[in-house]
Amino acid sequence: MNTTPIVDVATLLAEIQAQIDGGNLVTVSETIETASVEQLTEILERLPLKQRAVAYRLLPKDLAIDVFERLSPGLQSDLIRGLQDSEVAAIFADLDPDDRVWLIDELPAALAPKLLHGLSEKERALTAGVLGYPKGSAGRRMTPEYVSTRVDATVGEAMQRVQARLDEAETIYTLPVLDDNRHVVGVVSLRDLMRATEETSVADIVQPAKVVTAYQDAESAARICTGARYLAVPVVDKENRLVGMLTIDDAVKILEFEDAEDTARQGGVEPLRRPYLATPIRVLVSSRIVWLLVLAIGATLTVQVLSVFEDTLEQVTVLALFVPLLIGTGGNTGNQAATTVTRALALGDVKPRDLGRVLFRELGVGVMLGTLLGIAGGMLTGLVYEPRIGFVIGFTLIAVCAMAAAIGGIMPIIARSLRVDPAVFSNPFITTFVDASGLIVYFLIAQAILQIG
Amino acid sequence: MNTTPIVDVATLLAEIQAQIDGGNLVTVSETIETASVEQLTEILERLPLKQRAVAYRLLPKDLAIDVFERLSPGLQSDLIRGLQDSEVAAIFADLDPDDRVWLIDELPAALAPKLLHGLSEKERALTAGVLGYPKGSAGRRMTPEYVSTRVDATVGEAMQRVQARLDEAETIYTLPVLDDNRHVVGVVSLRDLMRATEETSVADIVQPAKVVTAYQDAESAARICTGARYLAVPVVDKENRLVGMLTIDDAVKILEFEDAEDTARQGGVEPLRRPYLATPIRVLVSSRIVWLLVLAIGATLTVQVLSVFEDTLEQVTVLALFVPLLIGTGGNTGNQAATTVTRALALGDVKPRDLGRVLFRELGVGVMLGTLLGIAGGMLTGLVYEPRIGFVIGFTLIAVCAMAAAIGGIMPIIARSLRVDPAVFSNPFITTFVDASGLIVYFLIAQAILQIG
Repeated sequence: MNTTPIVDVATLLAEIQAQIDGGNLVTVSETIETASVEQLTEILERLPLKQRAVAYRLLPKDLAIDVFERLSPGLQSDLIRGLQDSEVAAIFADLDPDDRVWLIDELPAALAPKLLHGLSEKERALTAGVLGYPKGSAGRRMTPEYVSTRVDATVGEAMQRVQARLDEAETIYTLPVLDDNRHVVGVVSLRDLMRATEETSVADIVQPAKVVTAYQDAESAARICTGARYLAVPVVDKENRLVGMLTIDDAVKILEFEDAEDTARQGGVEPLRRPYLATPIRVLVSSRIVWLLVLAIGATLTVQVLSVFEDTLEQVTVLALFVPLLIGTGGNTGNQAATTVTRALALGDVKPRDLGRVLFRELGVGVMLGTLLGIAGGMLTGLVYEPRIGFVIGFTLIAVCAMAAAIGGIMPIIARSLRVDPAVFSNPFITTFVDASGLIVYFLIAQAILQIG
Repeated sequence: MNTTPIVDVATLLAEIQAQIDGGNLVTVSETIETASVEQLTEILERLPLKQRAVAYRLLPKDLAIDVFERLSPGLQSDLIRGLQDSEVAAIFADLDPDDRVWLIDELPAALAPKLLHGLSEKERALTAGVLGYPKGSAGRRMTPEYVSTRVDATVGEAMQRVQARLDEAETIYTLPVLDDNRHVVGVVSLRDLMRATEETSVADIVQPAKVVTAYQDAESAARICTGARYLAVPVVDKENRLVGMLTIDDAVKILEFEDAEDTARQGGVEPLRRPYLATPIRVLVSSRIVWLLVLAIGATLTVQVLSVFEDTLEQVTVLALFVPLLIGTGGNTGNQAATTVTRALALGDVKPRDLGRVLFRELGVGVMLGTLLGIAGGMLTGLVYEPRIGFVIGFTLIAVCAMAAAIGGIMPIIARSLRVDPAVFSNPFITTFVDASGLIVYFLIAQAILQIG
């Protein structure tokens, strides 16, 4: 009941590690008893692989499942592989059907059938129902354990159904309302049921509901759920028949996961499946090396462009001094546009059909930004070096900013049309492309103004 | 009740614009009646300022508040300023106290007292209570309209309190449980109340609860809320006395807002307060120009570094060809590390006291990445150009990657310690710093290996 921990995690962690190393398992149990669920989760995250399985075994059973549910999917999967079959079966049976599916998605394929086999027939059927939908779909994240009511039932009857399923149902606060064919006609909240008299017909208080389809991708379904008025949205099949509910807490989990993925990919890394400090260094390396290589190979384009203009560079070496500044500014302008448009796409503020409007707006923004920077940069360079160099820098900044903003603005939309994650495709691609084409523009402008070639 | 719209937004929008331009307000009303709440929200977002106020006035009253609540804070504020005082007062009275505070935070300070004045005394007191906490705090986002129960009450008594406040309370599914001094001793869910008999004491079913304090920043409170088992967490004052509840849907709103801010700042733009297409071009420019200028000024450092090595460049012009590739790779490596560590900080996986561990890990990762890239890049360059240039590129890649990963990894932690948003500070700073110091390393290595100076 206490919310302020008495001993901090670092101390507990050191104690538990020493006790495990010393084979002193009884005292480990005693130490564990003084820690909160949150502390235990953090301690498990920070223990090395083998000690983690030992410590997990020593958790009291009721605490064990709480802690397990809080671990990241990667750590859950590690832990499962470190435990014995009977222990795994016990954990698995205690999870909700949709949490089981999260875990199965993480585990090696061979493990899943074995785990499912250990469930009761009813639980297996529920889990298999969820597993029947494609990876990444809303159906995969819904709960099959809900309370529904028929539209021609009375409020009293609906309340009895709630009362009968208080223990099992994952959500009882939002009830899908069905017609004779299991079609969703709306929802009713438990609050509205409590507000009405027992004899009222559900038909009189049913509210229109947003629904999501089981085959829709989980992220868009989750956004609909968090944007809806109720704490869960009905999930329907292609014939609009109810198959499950997507609850707001699962929607939050999905969105956190997707946001993590987007942010990671915009930074050019693959998202980690484990907390940072629990991730081995070689996993960190492999989450980054592919992008870094791809970007480096892309950047060889800049070497080629520059080697085309090597003669110009030899004649006017001073041009080389501005290369990092110019391509850096181009890259920044492009990334700004891409970041803004990627976000607008994710929120649905911009649709693929708005391509023309976005291009027009970003060109305008780019020209304005370029002009502001170009005047300042050109004058400064003209004063420090010579006026002609100032003109080269000024005009290049205008051209590069306009081009970068336009490309940065439309790339995420094109990526979306090609069904590629806009977050992956845009920023790295923009940087490479803007770098190379910015250099071409730079040297062409320089050759024209300085009359060299 | 229908979830699939009959007419699409673009068509409706065009119709409404034509009707408003033609002064045909009756037909506008008719067109509005065919649209869903979501469509109307999107239409309002896309209408120009003046037409927006006209269209909003024509919405049926019950729909108007629904649409208003869905608009982004910036648009709400625009709209308020386009409406008459009596209309504004009506909207304001219909909002929940915490939503009123979101809106007040957006409006010019002079408007707030006028709006508050129009409220009933009770509503004013509730809103003022929320307004009493500092901007950005959890207290500012909590709802003061909850149902609590005393720990020595029976389940029957608690249920009566719920029943009595069905209409007003923003949340009835999680009840804070209080002792004689209004201290929070835990929570009880409506489900648990329904599961127990009427005579059961609340003390027997109360569950330990995470609480947040009213002065804590809203983002960390929201993360605690979405990570908690219940649909709301109690908000307490410094003496652990209950002052409100933070509900999961408000927590989601806070996190969406914070994520938008983080993502925007990592891309070097200020977050937009309105949907992209409803944002004037000059606002887009001003959301980007400051960062772009700051970064460009930072980038002049690279011009200075390069001018120091201008003689070396004149002797071996081929060195200039690799400048974009090397600083690009350094920037990417640094951003990868910063993205990963920023995320880990936000999730609490890494604490400021882990600085040493992060530095050590990132140095390791950087050396490994640099070695892989350096061997590949060095060999390739050695074959295409000459072996000595290959060695220069190879060693530079190792040094730059190690340095960039280390700086990228620790910058977010340092930013956090200085109480600066890690998302703002890290990526742009890293790029500038890594660019300049990478160039120094590059030319020093080149001078050593090529024996020039």
